[in-house]
Amino acid sequence: MTAEAQATTTPDRRTLANALRMLAVDAVEKAKSGHPGMPMGMADIAEALWNRHLRHNPADPRWPDRDRFVLSNGHGSMLLYGLLHLTGYDLPIEELRNFRQLHSKTPGHPEWGVTPGVETTTGPLGQGICNAVGMALAERLLADEFNRPGHVLVDHRTFVFVGDGCLMEGISHEACSLAGTLGLEKLVVFYDDNGISIDGHVQGWFTDDTPARFEAYGWRVIRDVDGHDAAALDAAMADALSPTGKPVLVCCKTVIGWGSPKKAGTHDVHGAPLGGDETQATRAALDWPHAAFEIPAEIHDAWDARARGAALQRDWQARFDAYATEHPDLAAEFTRRIAGRLPDDFAERAAAFVTATALANTTAATRKSSQQAIAALAPLLPELLGGSADLTGSNLTNWPACRTVAGTGGGNYIHYGVREFGMTAIINGIALHGGHIPFGGTFLVFSDYSRNALRLSALMGIRAIQVFTHDSIGLGEDGPTHQPIEHAASLRLIPNMDVWRPCDALETAVAWRAAVERQDGPTSLLLSRQNLPPQPGGAPRGKAAARGGYILAEPDEGSPELVLIATGSEVPLAMAARDLLTAEGVAVRVVSMPSTTVFDRQDKAYRKAVLGTDAPRLAIEAGRTDGWWKYVGLDGGVIGIDCFGESAPADALFPFFGLTPDRVAEAARALI
Amino acid sequence: MTAEAQATTTPDRRTLANALRMLAVDAVEKAKSGHPGMPMGMADIAEALWNRHLRHNPADPRWPDRDRFVLSNGHGSMLLYGLLHLTGYDLPIEELRNFRQLHSKTPGHPEWGVTPGVETTTGPLGQGICNAVGMALAERLLADEFNRPGHVLVDHRTFVFVGDGCLMEGISHEACSLAGTLGLEKLVVFYDDNGISIDGHVQGWFTDDTPARFEAYGWRVIRDVDGHDAAALDAAMADALSPTGKPVLVCCKTVIGWGSPKKAGTHDVHGAPLGGDETQATRAALDWPHAAFEIPAEIHDAWDARARGAALQRDWQARFDAYATEHPDLAAEFTRRIAGRLPDDFAERAAAFVTATALANTTAATRKSSQQAIAALAPLLPELLGGSADLTGSNLTNWPACRTVAGTGGGNYIHYGVREFGMTAIINGIALHGGHIPFGGTFLVFSDYSRNALRLSALMGIRAIQVFTHDSIGLGEDGPTHQPIEHAASLRLIPNMDVWRPCDALETAVAWRAAVERQDGPTSLLLSRQNLPPQPGGAPRGKAAARGGYILAEPDEGSPELVLIATGSEVPLAMAARDLLTAEGVAVRVVSMPSTTVFDRQDKAYRKAVLGTDAPRLAIEAGRTDGWWKYVGLDGGVIGIDCFGESAPADALFPFFGLTPDRVAEAARALI
Repeated sequence: MTAEAQATTTPDRRTLANALRMLAVDAVEKAKSGHPGMPMGMADIAEALWNRHLRHNPADPRWPDRDRFVLSNGHGSMLLYGLLHLTGYDLPIEELRNFRQLHSKTPGHPEWGVTPGVETTTGPLGQGICNAVGMALAERLLADEFNRPGHVLVDHRTFVFVGDGCLMEGISHEACSLAGTLGLEKLVVFYDDNGISIDGHVQGWFTDDTPARFEAYGWRVIRDVDGHDAAALDAAMADALSPTGKPVLVCCKTVIGWGSPKKAGTHDVHGAPLGGDETQATRAALDWPHAAFEIPAEIHDAWDARARGAALQRDWQARFDAYATEHPDLAAEFTRRIAGRLPDDFAERAAAFVTATALANTTAATRKSSQQAIAALAPLLPELLGGSADLTGSNLTNWPACRTVAGTGGGNYIHYGVREFGMTAIINGIALHGGHIPFGGTFLVFSDYSRNALRLSALMGIRAIQVFTHDSIGLGEDGPTHQPIEHAASLRLIPNMDVWRPCDALETAVAWRAAVERQDGPTSLLLSRQNLPPQPGGAPRGKAAARGGYILAEPDEGSPELVLIATGSEVPLAMAARDLLTAEGVAVRVVSMPSTTVFDRQDKAYRKAVLGTDAPRLAIEAGRTDGWWKYVGLDGGVIGIDCFGESAPADALFPFFGLTPDRVAEAARALI
Repeated sequence: MTAEAQATTTPDRRTLANALRMLAVDAVEKAKSGHPGMPMGMADIAEALWNRHLRHNPADPRWPDRDRFVLSNGHGSMLLYGLLHLTGYDLPIEELRNFRQLHSKTPGHPEWGVTPGVETTTGPLGQGICNAVGMALAERLLADEFNRPGHVLVDHRTFVFVGDGCLMEGISHEACSLAGTLGLEKLVVFYDDNGISIDGHVQGWFTDDTPARFEAYGWRVIRDVDGHDAAALDAAMADALSPTGKPVLVCCKTVIGWGSPKKAGTHDVHGAPLGGDETQATRAALDWPHAAFEIPAEIHDAWDARARGAALQRDWQARFDAYATEHPDLAAEFTRRIAGRLPDDFAERAAAFVTATALANTTAATRKSSQQAIAALAPLLPELLGGSADLTGSNLTNWPACRTVAGTGGGNYIHYGVREFGMTAIINGIALHGGHIPFGGTFLVFSDYSRNALRLSALMGIRAIQVFTHDSIGLGEDGPTHQPIEHAASLRLIPNMDVWRPCDALETAVAWRAAVERQDGPTSLLLSRQNLPPQPGGAPRGKAAARGGYILAEPDEGSPELVLIATGSEVPLAMAARDLLTAEGVAVRVVSMPSTTVFDRQDKAYRKAVLGTDAPRLAIEAGRTDGWWKYVGLDGGVIGIDCFGESAPADALFPFFGLTPDRVAEAARALI
């Protein structure tokens, strides 16, 4: 078809797909970096899905009942940018021209919060599909909770594109296995089966029978779809939408870089520009006479989804209005939940809980105090959606009224199985979907397993809460494989991750409140296995603790000759050392620092007032010392553990590692 | 059978298994912590395997051709300790009485290097089976390399116990998928299919058709074996040993806590002592009249594998001697390789390469310099076994003469696929097996994915090398999902992990040499995507760099008024800032600190001499600043990046994040 002919007819579907291809080719070419192969290979699938099946409204990327679309193979970002631009999102062509440039809306990999219509940040392989499992689960739980006879408020699908890379990653096993068990039938995954990964033809390293693998998970698999045949794709998609109680994998045979005469089907097209000559050859082969970034009006028109999207949302709005008439409270609650707003009385009631905790003055493991906080907050927060990676009885993440999420019937507690990374990425998806405040649990040492999903929650700035128990050698006999040493320090290094290591029930209550109230990022709660006594200070201490670090105890008389800084289980140790030193006439201040990350955000005057100016400082934490020099300086000291732990009862370990009041006092004397 | 009858007859196999059960029950009871359920459930499988099939010699746990046994579900450690004790390893009953006590040889989870006969440290679920894949791969590669017609020197199997937890973990997908592709037929895995995990009956969260899943990986699956029927187990094991070109999964139906009248088949028996009453009831139910830790002589005798083991090893030694006669050089090489000794001329030739690199004075990305180092070292080191998690062309982990490992035919380069965690745990297994120095590659940011396997390599102190390229915002357009920020700092936090971030080709050569020569732990090499110029100093600088931190440049005149400390790509930045400051008459020392971990091990005098005593210090690194206060103190400064990166060309990013000579000079002026 010539350009002239195109100008007078409705573009055929291949031409529509070619618009995606050439936008990707030209943007990558202009940026001199990027991944053209995947967009060229999946363009026909994308065209079929977005033009015929996806229910969305480009004018309102936040419409609650939109279908979710997740590009799990996020390196193919230009495919998504092309789709968003062509269907009418607020993503003008200038942004595509600026692909991968500073502060463009078209970063190298899709980033949630940067580009309208991007549902999650992807690129680190395997996590997008897990986010999608979380979204599909959130949808089902919200539907169970809010839909009423005659009123369907929540009814949308989650579509995912994945490549070989995502399916090789272990995390895909974790989330897809759980999705099968939970029967998430509104999850539809398109597998870009092109036989190529970066190192070349995958048969040397990836020979799974992927359909059989997914059937083993309890998925429905639609096999052998020609990923370049619009009719075959339509049929497969129609089939995929029929409800069978199972998530659906659509296996599409594709050619990576489809349309490039010399590079299609090779890994050369995966992650590098085609080059000038091959771009020209591709333009010719695709019969695409238009200049780079020029999309003829009739092609734009054929892609434009704004009218259809507006109609879909109008229809939903009418249904919502009818629902609101019949169920005004539910409608208000749904709106609040989707907006991520806490209940109006939350602050007041949470404060009351913090005060009650102060008054109770209980000795307890902070994991137990955490469970009490959850039990207190859950009735105030129907959006709280808990769970654990098969350590419920150890993490104490459940609560009296929680109900297990199973195949159907709602619930607010998820048994994630032994799947720390999958859990965390699913939690990210739940948070992104909206409507819940999700939290999960595992041992702190296994935050290692989920680390990159924690990072992505911080990068996206979403409210995802992690309960990490067994937070030090204090867990005892399980030994060095299970004893965190570097974990508190290394979690604090993730930008925008709030980390709390409370010293008693009161600080635990404060930490939970902060985690729930935080709107712009995730929180990790580091909790002890062993009992910890309550510290003095009563209710006012709750307010102080909320600043992340505060003066827990001042010298009985005089100004401090020494400042002890401690977190968690080492706060009682610092207090005991203070007693020893006080008896010797040394004036000691003790600073409790449950959250360095929150403390670092306080104004300089406050920080200075807490840490003091003249007296030497000694920090104590049962973990790596490196991060503490920032607070104590080279004239100060740090008592911690810079080697791996040992298997023994906790009572034997603290002395073995020098974490005793005597040793602290000794180190203190050396500093003064 | 009564105790008296037992005393006069050969114990039956159930009784032998019950010895394992009761040792586990009693040890956990005495320690008041531990996991009796798995040993009780897998005792019959263990009895069948260890008494009838496993080829090992308790007197020589390092016999090179022993079968490897990996307890992937490491929480069942008492099963392994019982086996080692009963078959005759140097693990006296006192050690079992001291289960989980400080410095016993029976820590809570099996630890390599602590207990003779423990082949790898397990506990963090899913990793043991991956170690085993590495061991089976190492065996095959060594067999390919060393066996000769008429001489079979290397011919052993790798046996693994796994539970539901291991199979839920994503890492099991990664390694088992690759094992299928590689056709590791000497790998035999026993699946403890007991339907229970910590949260309870697994059907709520784990409903995989595991046999079908493994068949999809290309494994042979032996289904539905009664895990408590010795004859059925023998038959399955005999079947599993027949070569078919595929790894084998033997699915054993078991009852967790078998033998405990009240707790068998429940999660109560998973991870807690049975309690006094139930222990007594179990003793009665198992007809085990002996006191705790008492094993009748005839049961000991029936278990004792020393004579059989000695005969096996004698037979092998005879074969080795015949081999040595015919192939003396190969035999010597095999002995060297298994011992982990470098070639005699290695130090000299490596030093020559470092010197040659200094003289070449090339500008190159350090990932490219790393490739040149690999290419130079590989001919000296036939044990070098490289690979990448599907980023070969980016990590530059291959070299001209490398040969891909495929189904058969040896090789020294592994395409791991997009499996960072699996790769790292497989590498650990290769290192543990002996005979190779393995290394892998991925982007630094994805060290997150493999973090707990990195930790275990450090805990075990094995020689495993990681090539982490694209080590900062210098990677440019791929954006924040791919730009490491916290990773250098957080890898340095792992105890015993050496981290190098070289600034040029020379430091890269030094780092590679150090990684290879290091005998007691792993090394992470952090390498740039972008070109870096050579720094001055010539060959002598190689020796200085080996100390981890050294004076790269002194003031043209006078003693330093300022010490700039930098790593990697920020060293040229520091040098440029020094030029600016020198022009203003400021006397500046520049310290290059390619490895803080190595520098920290230098004597205090050296460290002081390098860092100086009086002049303020300013550290520069394109990553989190927190770790640097340890070197600069509160009077110093740190220039780094404490937020996430951005998608843009690298040339735009360094100025955006304030990493320019002008900004460094400005910060320096403020300090002086």
